[in-house]
Amino acid sequence: MTESIAANPDRLLPADPGTRAIARELLADVENLPIISPHGHVPAEMLAEDTPFPDPTALLVSPDHYVTRLIHANGTPLDQLRVGGTAEVDSRTAWRKFAEAWPLFDGTASGYWLRSEFEHVFGLSAETVDSFGVDTADSVYDAIAGKLAEPSFRPRQLFKDFGIEVLATTDDPLDSLEAHTLRAKDETFAGRVLPTFRPDPYLNIAHPEWAERVDRITAEAGDGVEGYAGYLRALENRRRYFVERGAVSADHGVRTPLTLKLERPEAEALFAKARRGEATAADRDAFEGHMMYEMARMSVEDGLVMTVHPGSFRNHHTATFEKFGADTGHDIPFAIGYTEGIRPLLQDFGTAKGFHLVLFTLDETVFSRELAPLAGFYPSVYVGAPWWFLDAPDSIQRFRSAVTETTGFTRTSGFIDDTRAFCSIPARHNMSRRVDASFLARLVAEHRITESRAHEIIRDLVDGSPRRVFKL
Amino acid sequence: MTESIAANPDRLLPADPGTRAIARELLADVENLPIISPHGHVPAEMLAEDTPFPDPTALLVSPDHYVTRLIHANGTPLDQLRVGGTAEVDSRTAWRKFAEAWPLFDGTASGYWLRSEFEHVFGLSAETVDSFGVDTADSVYDAIAGKLAEPSFRPRQLFKDFGIEVLATTDDPLDSLEAHTLRAKDETFAGRVLPTFRPDPYLNIAHPEWAERVDRITAEAGDGVEGYAGYLRALENRRRYFVERGAVSADHGVRTPLTLKLERPEAEALFAKARRGEATAADRDAFEGHMMYEMARMSVEDGLVMTVHPGSFRNHHTATFEKFGADTGHDIPFAIGYTEGIRPLLQDFGTAKGFHLVLFTLDETVFSRELAPLAGFYPSVYVGAPWWFLDAPDSIQRFRSAVTETTGFTRTSGFIDDTRAFCSIPARHNMSRRVDASFLARLVAEHRITESRAHEIIRDLVDGSPRRVFKL
Amino acid sequence: MTESIAANPDRLLPADPGTRAIARELLADVENLPIISPHGHVPAEMLAEDTPFPDPTALLVSPDHYVTRLIHANGTPLDQLRVGGTAEVDSRTAWRKFAEAWPLFDGTASGYWLRSEFEHVFGLSAETVDSFGVDTADSVYDAIAGKLAEPSFRPRQLFKDFGIEVLATTDDPLDSLEAHTLRAKDETFAGRVLPTFRPDPYLNIAHPEWAERVDRITAEAGDGVEGYAGYLRALENRRRYFVERGAVSADHGVRTPLTLKLERPEAEALFAKARRGEATAADRDAFEGHMMYEMARMSVEDGLVMTVHPGSFRNHHTATFEKFGADTGHDIPFAIGYTEGIRPLLQDFGTAKGFHLVLFTLDETVFSRELAPLAGFYPSVYVGAPWWFLDAPDSIQRFRSAVTETTGFTRTSGFIDDTRAFCSIPARHNMSRRVDASFLARLVAEHRITESRAHEIIRDLVDGSPRRVFKL
Repeated sequence: MTESIAANPDRLLPADPGTRAIARELLADVENLPIISPHGHVPAEMLAEDTPFPDPTALLVSPDHYVTRLIHANGTPLDQLRVGGTAEVDSRTAWRKFAEAWPLFDGTASGYWLRSEFEHVFGLSAETVDSFGVDTADSVYDAIAGKLAEPSFRPRQLFKDFGIEVLATTDDPLDSLEAHTLRAKDETFAGRVLPTFRPDPYLNIAHPEWAERVDRITAEAGDGVEGYAGYLRALENRRRYFVERGAVSADHGVRTPLTLKLERPEAEALFAKARRGEATAADRDAFEGHMMYEMARMSVEDGLVMTVHPGSFRNHHTATFEKFGADTGHDIPFAIGYTEGIRPLLQDFGTAKGFHLVLFTLDETVFSRELAPLAGFYPSVYVGAPWWFLDAPDSIQRFRSAVTETTGFTRTSGFIDDTRAFCSIPARHNMSRRVDASFLARLVAEHRITESRAHEIIRDLVDGSPRRVFKL
Repeated sequence: MTESIAANPDRLLPADPGTRAIARELLADVENLPIISPHGHVPAEMLAEDTPFPDPTALLVSPDHYVTRLIHANGTPLDQLRVGGTAEVDSRTAWRKFAEAWPLFDGTASGYWLRSEFEHVFGLSAETVDSFGVDTADSVYDAIAGKLAEPSFRPRQLFKDFGIEVLATTDDPLDSLEAHTLRAKDETFAGRVLPTFRPDPYLNIAHPEWAERVDRITAEAGDGVEGYAGYLRALENRRRYFVERGAVSADHGVRTPLTLKLERPEAEALFAKARRGEATAADRDAFEGHMMYEMARMSVEDGLVMTVHPGSFRNHHTATFEKFGADTGHDIPFAIGYTEGIRPLLQDFGTAKGFHLVLFTLDETVFSRELAPLAGFYPSVYVGAPWWFLDAPDSIQRFRSAVTETTGFTRTSGFIDDTRAFCSIPARHNMSRRVDASFLARLVAEHRITESRAHEIIRDLVDGSPRRVFKL
Repeated sequence: MTESIAANPDRLLPADPGTRAIARELLADVENLPIISPHGHVPAEMLAEDTPFPDPTALLVSPDHYVTRLIHANGTPLDQLRVGGTAEVDSRTAWRKFAEAWPLFDGTASGYWLRSEFEHVFGLSAETVDSFGVDTADSVYDAIAGKLAEPSFRPRQLFKDFGIEVLATTDDPLDSLEAHTLRAKDETFAGRVLPTFRPDPYLNIAHPEWAERVDRITAEAGDGVEGYAGYLRALENRRRYFVERGAVSADHGVRTPLTLKLERPEAEALFAKARRGEATAADRDAFEGHMMYEMARMSVEDGLVMTVHPGSFRNHHTATFEKFGADTGHDIPFAIGYTEGIRPLLQDFGTAKGFHLVLFTLDETVFSRELAPLAGFYPSVYVGAPWWFLDAPDSIQRFRSAVTETTGFTRTSGFIDDTRAFCSIPARHNMSRRVDASFLARLVAEHRITESRAHEIIRDLVDGSPRRVFKL
């Protein structure tokens, strides 16, 4: 018996029939609303140039470290999957490895996205997906490759077909944003594609290119000012450049939630020390913490929403990093605490008019313990949607359960797909809508909110929250 | 369609019809049992003087930092809500702000209490509550104000109507407890109102009034002994004073769960250093930890149940604290660990005859990891009920799930409302009973306990546990 | 009305009728599969000598610290339960104490095992179990004692009747493993009983017998080499001795997950310092961390699966430890972090061919945050099944929910009973199968996996995973 998962109208909805019926009604309100994606990693060039997608492996496997890491864990070296530009095998051979590994993904978030893409984006039958494996690897490869060759599978057309209204990219502060401008000038394309200011390598003095980047940004945007003052000026100028080109947020992938307000001479001394290459690990954290404070100050001035993503030990396995580069599946979360770390920033900007600070976590324990109480008091703070390993059905249920009783529904960020995998965007947003419908349906079934309010809430979660939080 | 939440007999019960039917039966056993509230913050004067409640804002909004913090997060300054004695607007104007903010509370614990109070205490119709907002703010204000003017809404009458049998207040060690005595002499009032010994500012050397308080307590109760010895003697004497006036517990709002057994000369030296104003942050923690040890020793001697509430960063936002005072919505929890911190105390008193130590947490992770194992071995230790941000339906389900498999039902404290909001007491205890009925019903439905035992257990949770743990 | 729990075919299955029906089908596939127990604490001598079990108290109460600790918490001194070889009361009197305490176990994992053993192993009626207490203590004692005298209750017969295929013991590195050899030579007994290498006291320099053990192992197995080199050689040799006698794993009960790669001279210096009795607490952790690295190196060479059990504060209450010894109910977990601690080991061995590293935790927070991401990348890493306080229905549901979305089903260890209580083995494995069936049934009901894949997965969880992970 063939069982379609991705096409089942009740997928992800709760099993209890009464609750499911409520969830269906709630979902119906929002299932077809436009997609608003205020944070993600789709390259702007893809849409600017509207180039056809490459082969199935290059689209769905090699660049998706959620996918390759699990196949790697099962014993397949990453070069067999063409990770990081390696090409020891051809795309079709790598695809066969993926097909062989397909059962590993049962129950995972990635398995759910992939199955949804197979069925909904590429039109594979449930039967085909159910029998996907070494024996059918080639025919599935060919079927997808065939689709990718069609004009309807070009990025801009998919953008429209997916119902995307807003898509934010993530960009280097020195990016010219030409791709965004190009696209903005194309009158045949109605989608809003926004840049996002992401200055990590400019703020982290342990980054191998920090000194070089500081030189460049100061030279290009420092208004001729040198040293620490020029560096700050350059960051301010580039942020303004982004704002002028439609950016609504600045994103920060920091090590920890630590923030710090250094006095000017102290900050200058630390900057100088780092420039001389003499900074310690403690200096690194202090400088990053101080720059988070500075970024908040700039956000208060220029209005960019500040998003913070701490708590991941990047590139945990050095040998893999050296061979395949970053983002290859071994960034591992660790325990964090926001309460003390974020305080210096909130002392000065927590109630600043118009300042929006979205705090993310990979450590679920901070949801009920710290983020909900913080967002329940500070007008600036919003609880970031479950992110990375946590953007999956059960994890999102735990998140809603953890924060709602303390801070309700209005202090959360709205769904963030944070993805590089363009074709998974519809499935991700749809998942989020289904899970929120399920959570709300339970509260209705338990008589904790009224059904009419639940309908208003789910519309706000899907449409209102992201617009409000990200100033869209 | 109007949907009454607070009046629905199945509110908070599980959605699955079979489990709900079991939960209903369990609830029926305990829904109308008297309320035992062994820890809370209702002022004894309120009952001693039986003064009418002030206006709706002063009763339901301004003093309830669960409520004001969320309105503040939404952008309304606290002085618009008359927090901390500010009076920039009148009560009715503040009430309108509250009415406007009403949708923020959907899904929150506070929203549930408020709705219950509206319907059950003030008799508002579900329709009125559903349409509560700016347009109806004035009429609701008037309706509640009208009720508050009635003799049946005086505190003592409500105390009876709420079915309260025991209510503990929280009191300063130097409080004369006159209000308790007054009330005890009133033969027309049958309720038991007990004082609770709460010595935080006398034990925390960083408290701005510590030195002054130490002077006062030593002068008033030190039997003429000076210095550290007089200070200890005074604490012992005041505890005895409380015991003689009906106190059953001493409550401790400490920063962390650290306890420490200092040798006498070391403790004296630290005390002297603090008296000279030279104590460091480490000294502060050490002295508080040592005094927790001393408090346990005194509890073993005088029988007061020791309750410990650590893990909250008090007054996180300094500007708000300076303008509006403490308890204004920005106490933020952080991660704690009991296993090592509480050990010195338990080494000496963990098996002491008759000693009861109730350990609370705002960090949910310690429930399964530390508190259940500790309470599952030490005869003195009880797991405190979910507290503060955690006294809500989902949080309590998580708590029961986290502790029961390790330590069963008999090692938990019984429900603690810990509230300043007198009118929310019935809804809080009712909520707790409903959630425990739901949890037990699931265990019955999954054939993990028998239905007959579930009936015995819920009676014990609601009535037996608080009497046993708090020696009532 | 008598309610049988242990005999109910739906016990532990989800309450929702639709989900339960799916779970029943899944369970039917695996309920009667052989038991594979790759880690536990049943003594090999018991099976080698096939001696009858002693009295009910000595079998079910005194040695089971899950049971005695909760009775102790309720106020009964451990010597009343004949813990640690104490004999202040006779077995029957201790049994009466246990019978009196029976209601404490409602809702606990231990209560579930005991009830299952009563009904399934000893054939007591549900009525008898329901009415178990002081009044019936003697008759239940006699009924069980009668059974224990029967030949069908000898260990080897029960081993067969329980359907155990593989059972691993836990053994000292210098154990001759004679009991394993004896049993292996007995042709009438088909069960596989494997030794496990457990070198804790040889690696922990704070262990009171460390120096003596090092002397002994070096003398017996160091090939005449002295000092640190001889010590390493001896460990290698004894591991090989275990491998030759069927061992498949080496188990490590360490304080924390810290690992460390010391250079040879540094390790030698630390070893020498410890031999001189001069090591500090920091030295202790460093040496243990370094030896974890060495154990991994040896595992890569000799193929023993490496299992790591950190995060328990052993013997929390000194007075109890001194009177009753270790494993008497007061080992209390604390917060741990794997991400940084395990990194040095994984840097060098995380992708080593054939190396299997099973990481356990008593701190649930690391499941989603650290273990699932680690096992989702490193081919060597498997997430250990919920262990100790966490091997219970709700805890296992939380575990599956926490890890599956990130790492699927194939990167977990398979169920580990880890028990000393031989007669509880069937109930524990049966519990695990029921909980996994329930979890999978929910995913099917929510259309997240197909029913046919769920059937394949549960067979793999019960049978495939333990064989694969433990190289059976």
